[in-house]
Amino acid sequence: MLLDPGSARLSPASSPFLAAARRQQLQDRVPVWFMRQAGRSLPEYRRVREGIPMLESCARPDLVAEITLQPLRRYGVDAAIFYSDIMVPLLAVGVELDIVPGRGPVMAHRFAGEADLAALRPVEPTDVGYVTEAVQILVRELGEVPLIGFAGAPFTLASYLVEGGPSKDYARTKSLMVGDPELWDALCRRLADISAGFLAAQVAAGASAVQLFDSWAGSLSAEDYGRYAQPYAARVLQRMAELGVPRIHFGVGTAELLPLMGAAGADVVGVDWRLPLSEASRRIGPAYAVQGNLDPALLGAPWPVLAERVRAVVRSGALAPGHIFNLGHGVPPDADPAVLGRIVDLVHEEGPKLRREAGAQPADGRGSP
Amino acid sequence: MLLDPGSARLSPASSPFLAAARRQQLQDRVPVWFMRQAGRSLPEYRRVREGIPMLESCARPDLVAEITLQPLRRYGVDAAIFYSDIMVPLLAVGVELDIVPGRGPVMAHRFAGEADLAALRPVEPTDVGYVTEAVQILVRELGEVPLIGFAGAPFTLASYLVEGGPSKDYARTKSLMVGDPELWDALCRRLADISAGFLAAQVAAGASAVQLFDSWAGSLSAEDYGRYAQPYAARVLQRMAELGVPRIHFGVGTAELLPLMGAAGADVVGVDWRLPLSEASRRIGPAYAVQGNLDPALLGAPWPVLAERVRAVVRSGALAPGHIFNLGHGVPPDADPAVLGRIVDLVHEEGPKLRREAGAQPADGRGSP
Repeated sequence: MLLDPGSARLSPASSPFLAAARRQQLQDRVPVWFMRQAGRSLPEYRRVREGIPMLESCARPDLVAEITLQPLRRYGVDAAIFYSDIMVPLLAVGVELDIVPGRGPVMAHRFAGEADLAALRPVEPTDVGYVTEAVQILVRELGEVPLIGFAGAPFTLASYLVEGGPSKDYARTKSLMVGDPELWDALCRRLADISAGFLAAQVAAGASAVQLFDSWAGSLSAEDYGRYAQPYAARVLQRMAELGVPRIHFGVGTAELLPLMGAAGADVVGVDWRLPLSEASRRIGPAYAVQGNLDPALLGAPWPVLAERVRAVVRSGALAPGHIFNLGHGVPPDADPAVLGRIVDLVHEEGPKLRREAGAQPADGRGSP
Repeated sequence: MLLDPGSARLSPASSPFLAAARRQQLQDRVPVWFMRQAGRSLPEYRRVREGIPMLESCARPDLVAEITLQPLRRYGVDAAIFYSDIMVPLLAVGVELDIVPGRGPVMAHRFAGEADLAALRPVEPTDVGYVTEAVQILVRELGEVPLIGFAGAPFTLASYLVEGGPSKDYARTKSLMVGDPELWDALCRRLADISAGFLAAQVAAGASAVQLFDSWAGSLSAEDYGRYAQPYAARVLQRMAELGVPRIHFGVGTAELLPLMGAAGADVVGVDWRLPLSEASRRIGPAYAVQGNLDPALLGAPWPVLAERVRAVVRSGALAPGHIFNLGHGVPPDADPAVLGRIVDLVHEEGPKLRREAGAQPADGRGSP
């Protein structure tokens, strides 16, 4: 249904997305997907979500599968990403919280100390049966298109727990982190285990890759990131390495953190729009593929200008050892799906040629001029 | 009243702040002030502002002087910064807007095109008589303490005009910028003239330095910054060069932009907390002093931890050709003034020794062990 039935590729294992993630980029395809491709920008999403609170929608396998598949029906993207919320695994172990529309995750109680640690027990597969079920439906439906598992990284999760909700400056989080490093360590180890358990459930049910979102890591200096965030992301990614799936690691405003985010145990480092992919790849090193990085704020620009930006991203990504096209952050709620569709088509139609012109080195040895 | 009466320095011209800004750092003093030192963190500020809307407070010379002086009475900071709002010069030329508490600047109408340009005429001194009057009061009261003039840079001002208020992603702004570069150029030239006129009025009345806030420039890649923001900041800073005052140029999340922000025509580049000052200075080059960069989110950390961070900033700044201690962004509204006071004292008491230990090169040739 979703891919050319004449294709020789019969399982996600040989998909262009996974090949790029493994630095074995296929010469005839630049893979593309969008963070938040499933979500409010799609009218069909708004329709199925009507009257259903966010966290409820994440716990209904039929709805999760439907929402995850919606962008695949609309766009010829090369991967699906499991529809969920970074707070879902916390909810699954019994943390009281809600997602408030227009505001974000709001905790019933702020994390206040030692006594709150006990509630943060590991995620067992039985806690997230609806995840297993949804992934199983999805893997069946998706066929050759890989499904990316989804979870938030410990620093970002901790920030919601400690602040009690979204924050501009993470003042409580940072004060705890530097002021009580032992408690911080205990908190983030538990969050790492929760995050890893949530991803492991998705992989066990058939997800082909994972993306770890440390969305707010960019609020830290490299020194603080290395000390207070990276070790816990590494703990999650290490568990994923044992499961043998490619690991994408992403945050916003992380130009200074990219090498550390790679070294945390990623195969692919997600890059926001602030740094050209060629420069990002130079900083991260040859052992990593990159993902990104069109500025989502430009989606409303006139098409010829936007198309040039898309081409520039593909050219710049051609100089990395592997490139998965994406935005530099999530699809904004008011994005026009038609524009996203044009981007996918452009990346697929012109991508291989643009890469060759930019001087991409063949990785797969498959024939191409 | 504010400085040691036995001091040999009799005018701001020889103040430690201006010396550092001119890369002639005095060996016996690390100058320190805080962005937003005048503001909501002070109970005396909240008292005098009670019932008075933000923009009204900026238009009353007595109140502007009082609020500007409040932190000087509390802390031994080495500079005052003119109390105002970046939207004041726009209001002065007749743009309809308001500052909504808890939200920020909100425009009566979004900037929509050519027809809205005419309203953005240059600021004449007669438009801002209250600024002249307030600065005159301040210069008299401040004696040897320099007053820093204050204005927003064109990109940041344009973002409020085009978005109609604060924004998370500047999508309209960026789409206009790349989609209609001629209109963008016309808009930003006018904003540069408004910003320069507002600063010129402050300098004419006696301000000893200026700081140009391009607060949201960090949302741009270096390429876009260089093309769509830097030329207009440069236009403002060039006017200031003609007036002979040191120029500080600051934005948040600008690690990748620092060299361009210096080259725009700054004497001092303000750095947020994400990059050590020594590394920032290495990137910007030896022709610039630096200002910053304690993470304001750490103000709530236990004092011994915070004090170590303060010392680290001083040591790192010692490797730049001039260092003015500051936070990496504005004082948060809930900051404890007592903590800020301890920071000022620490910087003054230990600063010279910390700089020597870190290997600072003497710039002024004045005796010091």
